[in-house]
Amino acid sequence: MNIDDLDTPTPVIDLDLVEKNVHRAQDYANRHGIALRPHIKTHKLPEFAHLQLRAGACGITCQKIGEAEVMADAGITDILISFNIVGRAKLERLRSLARRVSLKVVADSEAVLRGLSETFSGEMRPLPVLIECDTGAGRCGVATPEAVAALAKLVTELPGLSFRGLMTYPPKHRLPDVAGWLEAARAACRRAGIDVPEISSGGTPDLYHAHEQNMVTEYRPGTYIYSDRSQVAQGHGTLEDCALRIVATVVSRPAEDRCIIDAGSKTLSSDTQGLSGFGHIVEYPQMGIVGLSEEHGHCHVPPGSKGPEVGERVTIIPNHVCVVTNLFDRIPAVRNGRVEAMFTVAARGKVQ
Amino acid sequence: MNIDDLDTPTPVIDLDLVEKNVHRAQDYANRHGIALRPHIKTHKLPEFAHLQLRAGACGITCQKIGEAEVMADAGITDILISFNIVGRAKLERLRSLARRVSLKVVADSEAVLRGLSETFSGEMRPLPVLIECDTGAGRCGVATPEAVAALAKLVTELPGLSFRGLMTYPPKHRLPDVAGWLEAARAACRRAGIDVPEISSGGTPDLYHAHEQNMVTEYRPGTYIYSDRSQVAQGHGTLEDCALRIVATVVSRPAEDRCIIDAGSKTLSSDTQGLSGFGHIVEYPQMGIVGLSEEHGHCHVPPGSKGPEVGERVTIIPNHVCVVTNLFDRIPAVRNGRVEAMFTVAARGKVQ
Repeated sequence: MNIDDLDTPTPVIDLDLVEKNVHRAQDYANRHGIALRPHIKTHKLPEFAHLQLRAGACGITCQKIGEAEVMADAGITDILISFNIVGRAKLERLRSLARRVSLKVVADSEAVLRGLSETFSGEMRPLPVLIECDTGAGRCGVATPEAVAALAKLVTELPGLSFRGLMTYPPKHRLPDVAGWLEAARAACRRAGIDVPEISSGGTPDLYHAHEQNMVTEYRPGTYIYSDRSQVAQGHGTLEDCALRIVATVVSRPAEDRCIIDAGSKTLSSDTQGLSGFGHIVEYPQMGIVGLSEEHGHCHVPPGSKGPEVGERVTIIPNHVCVVTNLFDRIPAVRNGRVEAMFTVAARGKVQ
Repeated sequence: MNIDDLDTPTPVIDLDLVEKNVHRAQDYANRHGIALRPHIKTHKLPEFAHLQLRAGACGITCQKIGEAEVMADAGITDILISFNIVGRAKLERLRSLARRVSLKVVADSEAVLRGLSETFSGEMRPLPVLIECDTGAGRCGVATPEAVAALAKLVTELPGLSFRGLMTYPPKHRLPDVAGWLEAARAACRRAGIDVPEISSGGTPDLYHAHEQNMVTEYRPGTYIYSDRSQVAQGHGTLEDCALRIVATVVSRPAEDRCIIDAGSKTLSSDTQGLSGFGHIVEYPQMGIVGLSEEHGHCHVPPGSKGPEVGERVTIIPNHVCVVTNLFDRIPAVRNGRVEAMFTVAARGKVQ
């Protein structure tokens, strides 16, 4: 089967590009002595998690327990869940999971730590915990290095837990003081008599700058495996590196300046990542995807340009690839234009 | 099982509200002699398509063949596909589908019509076609009443097709000349000797104004069954009518003014529908959902307000409910707080 035989709209993965992206990142991490723990939120595929591990990753990162369960079912044995686990049902699933894989979690409050401790206090193995630090991204995380040390101290005191280190999802455009922040948090922990074995950072845009913060022992990139228009806009590689693209068909040319494709927000998602337009059309780079309905992509054909005809196919590099893979049950993968695999997106929709 | 036993994040459907919304619309349509053909894109559930038909709907509307196939498999026999069908693979599926249900389609160009005609020319029954008209929404559709008549003429000449009428997805804030436009198109068809049995319009915001355009014989509302924050903002009912809500859990309170919930863009979607914020929090109406990561909802706690604690649950009315139902494989339905059904979202992700 050939790429042209696939019906549209469909994402298509280029296997050569995936392998190149995975190995490039792993080689960089090896060169700098940084452990790589890829975030599977981008691909959601056990097959690619295994590819990353075979290349040399130390383990994987998941955001939700449901994702980690899928990966554990597929034989993956070293997992970090980088999300606060809250509530009885999830804590019980976490305990079951920790009995069958090497599991680590994060926490950023006493409430989260107490829930973890109550669940794991009767277990043979304590649960390793990293304290999440807000180094400027303004999402989750403890707000000051002193508060990190206090929470690390609590981990060492609570039954069922062991303190493993610090974790941050840094601001996209890293500030010089992320390193200073982490250094101060480590120092505060040491002053409290607590060793900090691991400091884990993440984010694809700054992947190849990870070594500049020399206290970072582990890095958790996600999007690097496929890349997308937003990553390129942030300076990560080029559009040619983008390994997942959408193939769509032109279904209407209702006006000279308007072209409608069969890929809407249920294919490309409405997540622009702050960019103008909803994707880059490879064959018509001047034709912007200016609006989306659920099943229609609204494209603007610039004056003086002919634009595609009804029935013509176009290839789109999406703005944010991680949300695109969440919209499809199955994604074909090609090599040199031939379909080599049809992956089931096993961890799709696992938001619990 | 009770609503509080459901793990989060999860959408929850209120069955009493669904039934009220369905019957209210059907009663209105009956009163004005308008055929109701609900669009299933909102719920994607055969169970609710049957509910709409039992209430008195004349048939259903689907956007893609994959959705129509799911509904036909569930025993639904009268389907309009309101999307241009283009390409060999889809045309063959369309032909198979037309052999087992009463099927109608739309077209807005000669290219689309010729594809349909080639596919259906050998069939026993001609395929009924409505010409899609652009009455101001600027998406698909023929641009002028005269061009509509020319395309209607072509339908009557091409083998395998029969002309059924006109279809439009009108601009959201209807202009007085939508009616004038449709009237002119019907007159142009009549001048060409072509009768126009059906004129089909749609859109929930103007559902209860459908009778003001007295040439409209059929109406295709979708979102009315659940409603959402965007519909309410456009004047359709109140927040109390919204039958699908998201239950989420607070997982972090990293700062006094910041609250993080476990519902991000993979639960609420990034489709704001032009509104500020990503949903309405019922218990904390002043707390805006100001940003989304894939698994984190970023909420702003206003100064002077306490906001919820870690572990607390909140209920969210989403901006655009149709894209939310596309993110979940299964959705629980409750009556008076008790879970009465767990629906499989059978037509989810059917973008082909």
